[in-house]
Amino acid sequence: MSAASTPRGGIDLGGTKIQAIVIDSANAVLGEARRPTPRENGPQGVADAMAEALREAADATGIESDALRGVGVGSPGETEAASGVVSNAKNLPDWAGSFPLGSRLQEALGTRVAVGNDVGVATRAEADLGAGRHHRSVLGVFWGTGVGGGIVLNGKDWHGRGAAGEIGHVVVKRGGARCPCGNRGCMEAYAGRSAMETEARRRMKKGEKTDLFDLMSDHDKPRLTSGIWERALDQGDAMTEELIERAIKALGAGIASAINLLDPEVVILGGGMGVRFGERFGPKIEKRINKNLFDSDHPPAFAIAELGDLGGAIGASLLVA
Amino acid sequence: MSAASTPRGGIDLGGTKIQAIVIDSANAVLGEARRPTPRENGPQGVADAMAEALREAADATGIESDALRGVGVGSPGETEAASGVVSNAKNLPDWAGSFPLGSRLQEALGTRVAVGNDVGVATRAEADLGAGRHHRSVLGVFWGTGVGGGIVLNGKDWHGRGAAGEIGHVVVKRGGARCPCGNRGCMEAYAGRSAMETEARRRMKKGEKTDLFDLMSDHDKPRLTSGIWERALDQGDAMTEELIERAIKALGAGIASAINLLDPEVVILGGGMGVRFGERFGPKIEKRINKNLFDSDHPPAFAIAELGDLGGAIGASLLVA
Repeated sequence: MSAASTPRGGIDLGGTKIQAIVIDSANAVLGEARRPTPRENGPQGVADAMAEALREAADATGIESDALRGVGVGSPGETEAASGVVSNAKNLPDWAGSFPLGSRLQEALGTRVAVGNDVGVATRAEADLGAGRHHRSVLGVFWGTGVGGGIVLNGKDWHGRGAAGEIGHVVVKRGGARCPCGNRGCMEAYAGRSAMETEARRRMKKGEKTDLFDLMSDHDKPRLTSGIWERALDQGDAMTEELIERAIKALGAGIASAINLLDPEVVILGGGMGVRFGERFGPKIEKRINKNLFDSDHPPAFAIAELGDLGGAIGASLLVA
Repeated sequence: MSAASTPRGGIDLGGTKIQAIVIDSANAVLGEARRPTPRENGPQGVADAMAEALREAADATGIESDALRGVGVGSPGETEAASGVVSNAKNLPDWAGSFPLGSRLQEALGTRVAVGNDVGVATRAEADLGAGRHHRSVLGVFWGTGVGGGIVLNGKDWHGRGAAGEIGHVVVKRGGARCPCGNRGCMEAYAGRSAMETEARRRMKKGEKTDLFDLMSDHDKPRLTSGIWERALDQGDAMTEELIERAIKALGAGIASAINLLDPEVVILGGGMGVRFGERFGPKIEKRINKNLFDSDHPPAFAIAELGDLGGAIGASLLVA
């Protein structure tokens, strides 16, 4: 087996779960493993769980981790490609500072490790292998706990000075709802799953009725997952319908703003909520986008992420392709 | 004189005025002429006035127009670089269709004519010769009758599929004020000079007091120019203060959205209103931007357009440099 055809690893590090894969040079997934992101033992505990998940995925394919061509990691927070250091990953435990994630994983796994931004690598995966593969300019919108964005222009990632793509913090209502980021009126303040849960709790405390939190307890979840939102919707919960409608309006305005500015060939909707609700609400989101397009006669293509749940890990693996 | 050092022409075509210049190879302006954009005789009348203005600017330098290296034109509407055709220029008289501006001017002037988008060439001028000359990525914001935007990334213009940069139509208030474009809540609906005038008229009809329209009549203007807004502000007109404050808030939110998405090195504020009020209100606009920045610890540089009123014509001349 030549080096170029040697399988490689990919790890998508999320606030809730760690997804690891082993993938071959034709980008076919050979093995995968998933585990919850540990809340104890801080960054080192997370790194240990990541190494275990990757080893499990490798075991399933009969390969030792040190025989992999390399392992790519998609991480939240600020990622430094050169050093593999990850800083300020607010939705990970005790990770406000800096942690040498790349080098620790490299020691544990015995192969080269490359670290990139989670949303950036997921956009890259969709651009190269998914819904964007026939397009040169791509806007990726990852609707999940928050709302992340990735930008590919002329086939290349656009990172600006390092912080580009924060489509979740495009303002859709000046002076509007408080966002988890601290500002007001961001798209994420209405559409991020975490902000939606906060709003649901606020309304419930005010006496409004909802099944959301009973469903959460019944299914033994610590928070309102995309699956819980879907169940509540399916049983006709009125507050759920309202909050999803509110999220869709915000997504429409925010994505339209980004299109008016960038005029990309395609918009790809991904993320936990995006993948789960894309088929159901895609046309509604598109309609909302069109309401705010400057050139509504020429909207870009609109697609749901094709790589689904594994997109982040596949994109991470491309860092070492 | 070698061809490369031959002076060139530039014409900035606006809804109100035509600005022509002759400029040398070191980008020093040798001559200039200005005239109002004629409202009669449609596109051909405008083309005739443009040729006259350019000839006047050339005369002042002792050069015939056919001895120029070429003439660049910055035009509103949809511009086709290859053919020089301009379509759908809504703020020009009877210009909803297509008009071969480039070839008509070429016949009239006897030299090569290149046509580009007005905001695009103005951004290019600031990026190359003005406030952006030490930066590789630039967001130009042209605050005038409307609010236009220009994007330079890695030193190159970004046009998307041809319609990028419409920062005036970034949504700052979903479902908000009606914009001249027909949509709701756009930045331009609050900050564009034309929308501001519409709002001032609406408030006056409701019985609110303002000196704006008396000043307009006194100075024999057909509309509220940037100069009239400044006079009203200087004499403490309350409605003027409110409407400018409202514009500044919208500019802050919309520009912050664009920064969150693109993360450019510098934001340059130009346009008739931007140049007139930049020094006075720049710090206030910056403060407003910072309120909605995701990464407010690392704002981009903020600068007022350095080339002032001639920026558009200088940028146009770069099309034939």
